[in-house]
Amino acid sequence: MTTLSAPRSDAEATTTVVVPLAGKAYDILIGPGLIARAGAEIAARFPGARASIVTDDTVAGHLAGALNASLEAAGLEPQTIVVPAGEKTKSFAVLETVVDGLIAQRRERGDLVVALGGGVIGDLAGFAASITRRGMRFVQIPTSLLAQVDSSVGGKTGINTPRGKNLVGTFHQPSLVLADTDALASLSPRHLRAGYAEVAKYGLIDDAPFFAWLERNHGEVLARGPALTHAVATSCRAKARVVVADEFETTGARALLNLGHTFGHALEASTGYGERLIHGEGVAIGMAQAFRFSASLGLCAPADAERVAAHLAAAGLPTRLADIPGDVADDETLIALMGQDKKVKRGRLTFILARGIGEAYVANDVPPDAVRAFLATERTL
Amino acid sequence: MTTLSAPRSDAEATTTVVVPLAGKAYDILIGPGLIARAGAEIAARFPGARASIVTDDTVAGHLAGALNASLEAAGLEPQTIVVPAGEKTKSFAVLETVVDGLIAQRRERGDLVVALGGGVIGDLAGFAASITRRGMRFVQIPTSLLAQVDSSVGGKTGINTPRGKNLVGTFHQPSLVLADTDALASLSPRHLRAGYAEVAKYGLIDDAPFFAWLERNHGEVLARGPALTHAVATSCRAKARVVVADEFETTGARALLNLGHTFGHALEASTGYGERLIHGEGVAIGMAQAFRFSASLGLCAPADAERVAAHLAAAGLPTRLADIPGDVADDETLIALMGQDKKVKRGRLTFILARGIGEAYVANDVPPDAVRAFLATERTL
Ligand SMILES: NC(=O)c1ccc[n+]([C@@H]2O[C@H](COP(=O)([O-])OP(=O)(O)OC[C@H]3O[C@@H](n4cnc5c(N)ncnc54)[C@H](O)[C@@H]3O)[C@@H](O)[C@H]2O)c1
Ligand SMILES: NC(=O)c1ccc[n+]([C@@H]2O[C@H](COP(=O)([O-])OP(=O)(O)OC[C@H]3O[C@@H](n4cnc5c(N)ncnc54)[C@H](O)[C@@H]3O)[C@@H](O)[C@H]2O)c1
Repeated sequence: MTTLSAPRSDAEATTTVVVPLAGKAYDILIGPGLIARAGAEIAARFPGARASIVTDDTVAGHLAGALNASLEAAGLEPQTIVVPAGEKTKSFAVLETVVDGLIAQRRERGDLVVALGGGVIGDLAGFAASITRRGMRFVQIPTSLLAQVDSSVGGKTGINTPRGKNLVGTFHQPSLVLADTDALASLSPRHLRAGYAEVAKYGLIDDAPFFAWLERNHGEVLARGPALTHAVATSCRAKARVVVADEFETTGARALLNLGHTFGHALEASTGYGERLIHGEGVAIGMAQAFRFSASLGLCAPADAERVAAHLAAAGLPTRLADIPGDVADDETLIALMGQDKKVKRGRLTFILARGIGEAYVANDVPPDAVRAFLATERTL
Repeated sequence: MTTLSAPRSDAEATTTVVVPLAGKAYDILIGPGLIARAGAEIAARFPGARASIVTDDTVAGHLAGALNASLEAAGLEPQTIVVPAGEKTKSFAVLETVVDGLIAQRRERGDLVVALGGGVIGDLAGFAASITRRGMRFVQIPTSLLAQVDSSVGGKTGINTPRGKNLVGTFHQPSLVLADTDALASLSPRHLRAGYAEVAKYGLIDDAPFFAWLERNHGEVLARGPALTHAVATSCRAKARVVVADEFETTGARALLNLGHTFGHALEASTGYGERLIHGEGVAIGMAQAFRFSASLGLCAPADAERVAAHLAAAGLPTRLADIPGDVADDETLIALMGQDKKVKRGRLTFILARGIGEAYVANDVPPDAVRAFLATERTL
């Protein structure tokens, strides 16, 4: 007996999410085998375009050959630019290298930049695409879970400067996103879990049923089974909704995506954005803290906060300051990092708080003293 | 007896041209005394914003003090970033310096970058504004005639790379343009004449009556008299029309602005973009050539070509290869520079040709042999 609804091919197993931005709507394809089909998918949408692949030296070893072959077969005349893996690559110096490479390859405005990698590559290559010849089109092929569910969708591009993260960049929407779930096979378990924190975030923001689904299915998601496609697709749909509501981060809707990021960024910054605490881990602690903080302010039930922490811990993620290896910076340092000095001076901090699971909201008026009192209890966990 | 229509104040002498782009319309104010009024004009439009002035070390000496005082008085908390004067400043290295300066000054997305200078400063500062914190607003205060009539309007920003001019940049419309005709007092006569070439261009493209007006009034325009405001305003209106028809250079309308630029750019490139031939001078020769070429192809009356060259020469501009000091590159070098190698290989060149004064059009199919034959006659002038 055959199950008629079971996919018989990769193409059938593909989910499509449309990001319906006026004048620049684009497809996100999610599922297995998409790198092998990338050439065909791209050539069908952008006839006559040529493609330059931008990737990092870790991802290149796993996936660049297959992508190159696929683009070559589709007549896209691919050429590749390889940059070092890691956050340091999001710099002016590497940006200049990528832009120069695209010009040396004689790419024109109608040609495509194809970002093959995690969020670092997507942010860097998207930025390079947006400024080379005053704007080339670009395709995201995210290869980390974080990039598949978050950074590849929404058009934020950028680099860091010595003065801070993501301070330089553009809004430049991709023309297509291909999230190949097979590509995650070579991703380290730690980065897989870190990306999972952003998946859980969408449930916590406004989708309690999805969070409940994750509680039941996180094992299969983290084992990279078929549930992974559903998790990625649900996340992309959620991100797409927010992006359409607030493309340029002006209406405030996009701020909800920062759930867990106010605490999380402060922890990341205080640990130097390194191996001690990677982004998704900071977000996991931050989300657990946002719920505990909400509970301590009487906004949400303590049971909800416990449920959030229990789920993240079950997924192998840190949820407490004590889970960070080594000493954690003191309260005043963290508070300063949270809002940047001058916002704290004006007296109030912005947090994403919650009235329950799936009920997050923007709180613009949190007094630093409330944060101080909360952090004191956090030190005892 | 008083003439009731004569302006009694700078404010009355100001002409306003609106660039009616949907969602980002902006004003161009043209007339005397605008730098002194800049603070008031900016503060009225952007309440609460702070301003960072970007300027070059030549312009700074003439105008930065007055602008700073005006912004200071209006509560805009100005700070200034000074870069070296000259085309070399349109580089990645200087861009990074400007962006870093804006971040060091703690400017936010709602704050303003104020570009005070010629086209170099407008292109560089506009680019920096478009990428700092993913997009700050910016105000153009053009101080060269070229910048007042051309580069400050339309939102093209950018820098050069060793591989070519303006290869990196964005489309980022200014939020306001203040063209203070008094600022031109310190501009060198040579740069004033170079900017005048772009003024004449608007007449030649599609406004024969304006060209005829210039034939009668160029003396007063170049003497920086009251006719200057009319010349700048008419030019800005023409540029604004084209920009609205083709904001992102996709419909082809913007291509008409390249009248004189195909020949002109090749001559500039062959002379190294230096003091031997500055941009507007290259454009002047290029426009005279575009009309002689059109006449030689039987497209326009030889008398029109003669009238064009006579007027440019009367304004003190070069109109022939022989007017360039030193040896001019050979025909094949110029042809290669005109279309970039690969376009020439496909066999055809794009030129802006004319059926008469005010009747320019885009010709996409010019055979290189026709250009060769024409250049041979040009060598004998
Ligand atoms: N643009 C946005 O909206 C947005 C949103 C969130 C995060 N970000 C940015 O994303 C970045 C973090 O993304 P990330 O976690 O993907 O970082 P990353 O790109 O550095 O990838 C993490 C590591 O995994 C490796 N890797 C990626 N895919 C792999 C694969 N399939 N197989 C083997 N190794 C693989 C990379 O080489 C890297 O070493 C940060 O710079 C952050 O600022 C951007
Ligand atoms: N963005 C566009 O649409 C566009 C259009 C045309 C040209 N451009 C660019 O504009 C640039 C050329 O512009 P430009 O000719 O103004 O060059 P520029 O900015 O170099 O100015 C020319 C010289 O005049 C000096 N100067 C400017 N204003 C002065 C004043 N009031 N008093 C004394 N000195 C003054 C400058 O310091 C400089 O030395 C080129 O880089 C070109 O690519 C851009």
